[in-house]
Amino acid sequence: MAKLSGQITVTAVGKIKAKHWRAAQDEYLKRLSRYTTINLVEVKDAVGRGQPDAAAMAREGEALLKASTNARRRIALTPTGKLLDSRAFARFVQKEVEEYGRIAFLIGGPLGFSPDVLDQCPVQISLSPLTFTHELARVILLEQLYRAATIVAGEKYHK
Amino acid sequence: MAKLSGQITVTAVGKIKAKHWRAAQDEYLKRLSRYTTINLVEVKDAVGRGQPDAAAMAREGEALLKASTNARRRIALTPTGKLLDSRAFARFVQKEVEEYGRIAFLIGGPLGFSPDVLDQCPVQISLSPLTFTHELARVILLEQLYRAATIVAGEKYHK
Repeated sequence: MAKLSGQITVTAVGKIKAKHWRAAQDEYLKRLSRYTTINLVEVKDAVGRGQPDAAAMAREGEALLKASTNARRRIALTPTGKLLDSRAFARFVQKEVEEYGRIAFLIGGPLGFSPDVLDQCPVQISLSPLTFTHELARVILLEQLYRAATIVAGEKYHK
Repeated sequence: MAKLSGQITVTAVGKIKAKHWRAAQDEYLKRLSRYTTINLVEVKDAVGRGQPDAAAMAREGEALLKASTNARRRIALTPTGKLLDSRAFARFVQKEVEEYGRIAFLIGGPLGFSPDVLDQCPVQISLSPLTFTHELARVILLEQLYRAATIVAGEKYHK
């Protein structure tokens, strides 16, 4: 059976505080760890803490890039990114890890990404045209990565 | 401030078992109840319990229709439905409750909807081309309904 034999880092702005969201996140991290090397890195949110928006966004961007330096390929989640269905997403992730080994998904803060971050992300993916909270976006991404791992492994996947 | 002054029913196949998903769902139900009359009706899942798929799907469909008889308009969530961004979704929900008063969103089981159900749903909406678990689909819908309520109320909404 095929495996996602690379290393996937999810780099996100902000901490998940609510216990139930953290539980959902941890469940998918645990499940994913049976299929691939998965890391989650939370960087400090800066927007909305008194700094001008552009400066705060640049600061979050630097932190996201630093947290993903180990990756040979960065993929940004943006509202205008490419929309894929779950099977196409699974093929995409498989192709990326096969080609680059270590990849990182970047989830921005409420204002999105600074131009510096987007310059470093050759691919942009969208989870939906809908806007989600950062908790929901993160959990959806992890659930889709888990689903992708089961699809690549040829397992009957969970609906 | 504008309000979603109708009645919204979310009718879904299956029970959410995991505590963290139930907590996420209940949080949005509680928040939504400050803006509109919201009901959640869970109908029994039948698919995967030994019956032929078509028969099980028909049975789930009957239960969904029965659970939403009070609504003057039914909206099905389907993978091929219309994709909206959050602001367009808010306008859509506002228009529907203004026109029909009582509306219902239907979330199907793993095989989707029987033709009988789709016949009763003049509109189909998609949350994303991605396939979600039923827990995730339900929580995303509730979060978007809450977001819609805050958009309609003209409040600064939560990212």
